Amino acid sequence: MLGVLGGMGPAATVDFMEKVIDCTGADTDQENIPMIVCSASNIPDRTAYILGNGPDPLPDMIVAVRRLEVAGATRIAIPCNTAHYWHAALQAVTSLPILHIVEVVCDVLEREPNAKARGPIGILATHGTLAAGIYSQHLAERGFSSLQPQGDDQHEVMRAIGLVKAGCTAEAIEPLMRQAQKLWDRGCSVVVMACTEIPIALAHRPEVAQGRLLDATDELAKACVAIYKSALGENEPDVESGAPGAPVPTLHGASIYGGTLQA
Amino acid sequence: MLGVLGGMGPAATVDFMEKVIDCTGADTDQENIPMIVCSASNIPDRTAYILGNGPDPLPDMIVAVRRLEVAGATRIAIPCNTAHYWHAALQAVTSLPILHIVEVVCDVLEREPNAKARGPIGILATHGTLAAGIYSQHLAERGFSSLQPQGDDQHEVMRAIGLVKAGCTAEAIEPLMRQAQKLWDRGCSVVVMACTEIPIALAHRPEVAQGRLLDATDELAKACVAIYKSALGENEPDVESGAPGAPVPTLHGASIYGGTLQA
Repeated sequence: MLGVLGGMGPAATVDFMEKVIDCTGADTDQENIPMIVCSASNIPDRTAYILGNGPDPLPDMIVAVRRLEVAGATRIAIPCNTAHYWHAALQAVTSLPILHIVEVVCDVLEREPNAKARGPIGILATHGTLAAGIYSQHLAERGFSSLQPQGDDQHEVMRAIGLVKAGCTAEAIEPLMRQAQKLWDRGCSVVVMACTEIPIALAHRPEVAQGRLLDATDELAKACVAIYKSALGENEPDVESGAPGAPVPTLHGASIYGGTLQA
Repeated sequence: MLGVLGGMGPAATVDFMEKVIDCTGADTDQENIPMIVCSASNIPDRTAYILGNGPDPLPDMIVAVRRLEVAGATRIAIPCNTAHYWHAALQAVTSLPILHIVEVVCDVLEREPNAKARGPIGILATHGTLAAGIYSQHLAERGFSSLQPQGDDQHEVMRAIGLVKAGCTAEAIEPLMRQAQKLWDRGCSVVVMACTEIPIALAHRPEVAQGRLLDATDELAKACVAIYKSALGENEPDVESGAPGAPVPTLHGASIYGGTLQA
């Protein structure tokens, strides 16, 4: 049973669940992945803490992990990129494997042809994710360079994320696309939507299907489904959650599992 | 913390969560309702059992209730109409109050002006919900008459529900609207979308805003938000979950709580 440490924010959790369901492609209820979801919207703001302006969200995240444990989760996914600042701290307090959204994204990027010759990876994310280097460090360890919006541009990204959190999704599209364009103009071939609020606004943009915008939420969902189907014996090889280099679906939706994932 | 006994089906659970979030109208993550959601998609088919063609889903439903209990839920909602066949059996095994979707819908219908003079209530639902009389009995107890599709018409509704469960939502719209139209033609002023798969297909139809199609999922979500806001002291009077006659928002979206629910 997949445990989802959610509520950061609640709409992003719903978006993640929807992507798990879509990616599973079930014909009946019973073919879906059982999930236990803690939408712990009470967890304090992640970016505020990282920037030194708010309480530590870790204690409430641990409470949510405990809820998932006692409810019977066997693996945990966290549909919030900024929350991965605490990934190691959370993994240290639970025996349940916790997928790492950034590792999943790195795996996907790595499987692209000429991945590292295609220019830096653009990152659209919260101030917290950028300040903590959550993506830039993992990408650098995998041999990728990365670029992020600077100054007022990054403030525009953060305001747009706030708009999505407040339910004003349509208003967030234009500023987010403007900032994605600036990253493409600076030489990025791929821009990662590295905050789970962003694909709520941009998931249906043609640039996603073109592979120019990468949806971290969707890749996390695909990785969860791949693990589940692998455990059911529908896929090979077996997948270890969150392990660097673990096989996950590639950027443009083709499965690495001989096509069975998409079948 | 709102507990959601879900997975019947998984997309309907996501739809319900989305409606809770929309109805809450939060500006930040932390203003949302914390939820613990068990998407127990493994629960056997409800209609099959009621029609004598499948295993009893009650044991797996009880397991899901136990997961919600240990995870810290303080109240339970079930975004599946057919599952309410087991409402009393589930309420008997837990001290957590379980909202009753049919009572919520009856409350909403009752608050309409001249509610009972406006003709019978149309019911679009699964074979199981109709065979068990889940709606017809509750409506009759409240003094409403009801109508449901007959023969091939009901088979068309059931096929459309199956299409939504299989992710073929667009294909379900035409048959469902055809059957709603037949109920309106037979004298119903309101047709209840009394299976949580149906509003996934029809929620954006103009007939919903007109009050001719009533979304049971949305009404359940509104009732949950009203209870939550009441508990926070934002609403009066206090709301008792699932009690017959408990106040819930009215059919056309106006709040009965002096407008604070919509504020």
